[in-house]
Amino acid sequence: MEYHIADRIAGVQGSMIRELFKLAADPNMIAFGGGNPSPDTFPTGEIARITADVLANSPASVLQYGLSEGYPPLRETMKKHLEAVEHISFEKNELFIVSGGQQCADLITKVLVNEGDTVLVEEPSFVGCLNTFRSYGAKLCGIPMEPDGMNLEALEKALREQKKVRLLYIISSFQNPTGFTTSAEKRQKIYELAKKYDVCIFEDNPYGEIRFAGEHIDPIKSFDTDGRVLYAGSFSKTMAPAFRLGFLAFDKALTARVTVAKQCTDVHSTTLFQYICNEYMTKCDYKGHIEKTCALYRHKCDLMLGEMEKKFHPDVRFNRPEGGLFVMAFLPEGMDSYPFVAEGIKRGVACVPGIAFAADEGGTHNGFRMNYSSPSDENIVRGIDILGRLTHEWMSR
Amino acid sequence: MEYHIADRIAGVQGSMIRELFKLAADPNMIAFGGGNPSPDTFPTGEIARITADVLANSPASVLQYGLSEGYPPLRETMKKHLEAVEHISFEKNELFIVSGGQQCADLITKVLVNEGDTVLVEEPSFVGCLNTFRSYGAKLCGIPMEPDGMNLEALEKALREQKKVRLLYIISSFQNPTGFTTSAEKRQKIYELAKKYDVCIFEDNPYGEIRFAGEHIDPIKSFDTDGRVLYAGSFSKTMAPAFRLGFLAFDKALTARVTVAKQCTDVHSTTLFQYICNEYMTKCDYKGHIEKTCALYRHKCDLMLGEMEKKFHPDVRFNRPEGGLFVMAFLPEGMDSYPFVAEGIKRGVACVPGIAFAADEGGTHNGFRMNYSSPSDENIVRGIDILGRLTHEWMSR
Repeated sequence: MEYHIADRIAGVQGSMIRELFKLAADPNMIAFGGGNPSPDTFPTGEIARITADVLANSPASVLQYGLSEGYPPLRETMKKHLEAVEHISFEKNELFIVSGGQQCADLITKVLVNEGDTVLVEEPSFVGCLNTFRSYGAKLCGIPMEPDGMNLEALEKALREQKKVRLLYIISSFQNPTGFTTSAEKRQKIYELAKKYDVCIFEDNPYGEIRFAGEHIDPIKSFDTDGRVLYAGSFSKTMAPAFRLGFLAFDKALTARVTVAKQCTDVHSTTLFQYICNEYMTKCDYKGHIEKTCALYRHKCDLMLGEMEKKFHPDVRFNRPEGGLFVMAFLPEGMDSYPFVAEGIKRGVACVPGIAFAADEGGTHNGFRMNYSSPSDENIVRGIDILGRLTHEWMSR
Repeated sequence: MEYHIADRIAGVQGSMIRELFKLAADPNMIAFGGGNPSPDTFPTGEIARITADVLANSPASVLQYGLSEGYPPLRETMKKHLEAVEHISFEKNELFIVSGGQQCADLITKVLVNEGDTVLVEEPSFVGCLNTFRSYGAKLCGIPMEPDGMNLEALEKALREQKKVRLLYIISSFQNPTGFTTSAEKRQKIYELAKKYDVCIFEDNPYGEIRFAGEHIDPIKSFDTDGRVLYAGSFSKTMAPAFRLGFLAFDKALTARVTVAKQCTDVHSTTLFQYICNEYMTKCDYKGHIEKTCALYRHKCDLMLGEMEKKFHPDVRFNRPEGGLFVMAFLPEGMDSYPFVAEGIKRGVACVPGIAFAADEGGTHNGFRMNYSSPSDENIVRGIDILGRLTHEWMSR
């Protein structure tokens, strides 16, 4: 039969990253293209112990239907944690546990964005969320990303000129794909602009706890007096991705709407994993666990960047991430990274071309994203060696 | 600030059932209102053993990011299972593992229904899915439900007269909330009508395996030659609800669209639970487990219906479900069950009024839904005694 595909989904392409993820399953491919955390960071022993305990003593409590808002003790734990670590107050805010950071994008868009509304996004930005916005028929408008956050002139111009701007999407720390962190000063100014033009901010912070250099910067949500900021986080990088757990903090005025959106989507998130997260965060050495995770990624990032400094052609530029999982390297301005990445894959190293993260997929992009959290040290050295040679060939063409 | 709530969500009410679910948490309330499976049916020992084994031997395989389509071995297992049990062929069909039966509704609507399109639904029907359709701006049109399935004249009238009908939603076996099962003959005729008017069918079968009386009837999907039927199932009633796992079978032509919809929504479903389902279905006594589950629900259903026959006023009518978790009782035609249910709750027994399951929430409904899978035998007897007295009072007012 001929299907009537809904307009909202007809224009969305499959994620290049997810396709590359399949490619990366080839054991011979050096996979810089994915975004997997290192399995060495999963607290497997404690997960096994906590699971065995609860299944032996109180199985129904973690196997039966749960609440749409999330497992109450974990919600309280996360509120306290975000108050202590990110200085977010929960006096006027609410926190729900959701099915991974991706679902934050899904629920926020469902609740706040009509078809035809505009969402402003960092350019480049995380394709998973761009596709979520697209899947609700939103119009995307990219704001060029700079090493200290988005270009403010471009942001104000877009706020002034674009029609029905409902949401400003920002990954404030160790942005995916660039690895850039928005400065404290720009965070303030972005908030003031959002206020001036009466727009909500979706602040996505899935990597926030994975800072391995520089100083902590409070999220925009920490100084949000209007309830303008919806703040999203994830357990994928701090516990395990397959838990499919994240959290969403938002003004209490939105509680009924977010509840309905969650009920319509997947009813509630897995209770066992919520229980494990809560037990781990309250009874195990969560702080030490995060420190170990950061130390591992500091090492891997240093290794990759050190090799890049040695091997890459000097015209290929990159910044030093202070956390997170990614670094973006940039071919000279105006050069398209897509054929470069394609050639890299032929030679056995997978990256993601910048165009995959563009608001306007029709153009070109000179950057390519590399992930250092997942490949082995040996593969980081081998992969950068292969890409390094390629940069020299590419520059001398 | 004043939020611009998206039109799609502004009109959706919170689920009365989910609110009642909170009420049911009161240990003194006799809860006929929920839809929980009995925790006695969870294969807890095997879940614990399988989990301990995999976390000890291969933790990364169940804690790392997985594929959007689902864990490949479970997909294969489910295809074989559905071929054997439901006679669904996977020559031209695909099967994805998704985050609970509810997500099937979310993904199908995202892919196939534009805002303003019409979805035909059984009247009454499962409010969770009705709200999902509403959350995509769909117009609902209810087709009166009869003990052998929806009224075919009303269905054809709606197909002929309603504009842009894109989907026909049907829970073919042990329907929620009525407990009715669509007959084999009506299944054929519904398919023919869908074909005649070129409409897709969303066949939801979360209770299909929980048949404890009568003869198996093949789902509509089993004789779908056009790829017109999207078939949804759930592990919530066969394994455990908190796994948040379901599955969706659909024509291969839709694969790319469903993949994108899944990626935009929650990336993938929990890998550990997919692994457990697969191990359990391939290496444990799954058949015996389902037989035990059915035996338990047969007993509970018989108990509840036996008490209803003894205690209810004879003008309160009900049918005998052949499976599933619910029975609906009907006050005399034209009587509103809402105040009856409200009075029942005051007396300590929670049911759900039929209006909660209506396509048009503005009217009244004479039915009320009762769940027999979750309450204890003692509470079934006590609860029906209380409701029985109430029916007699109600009829003599």
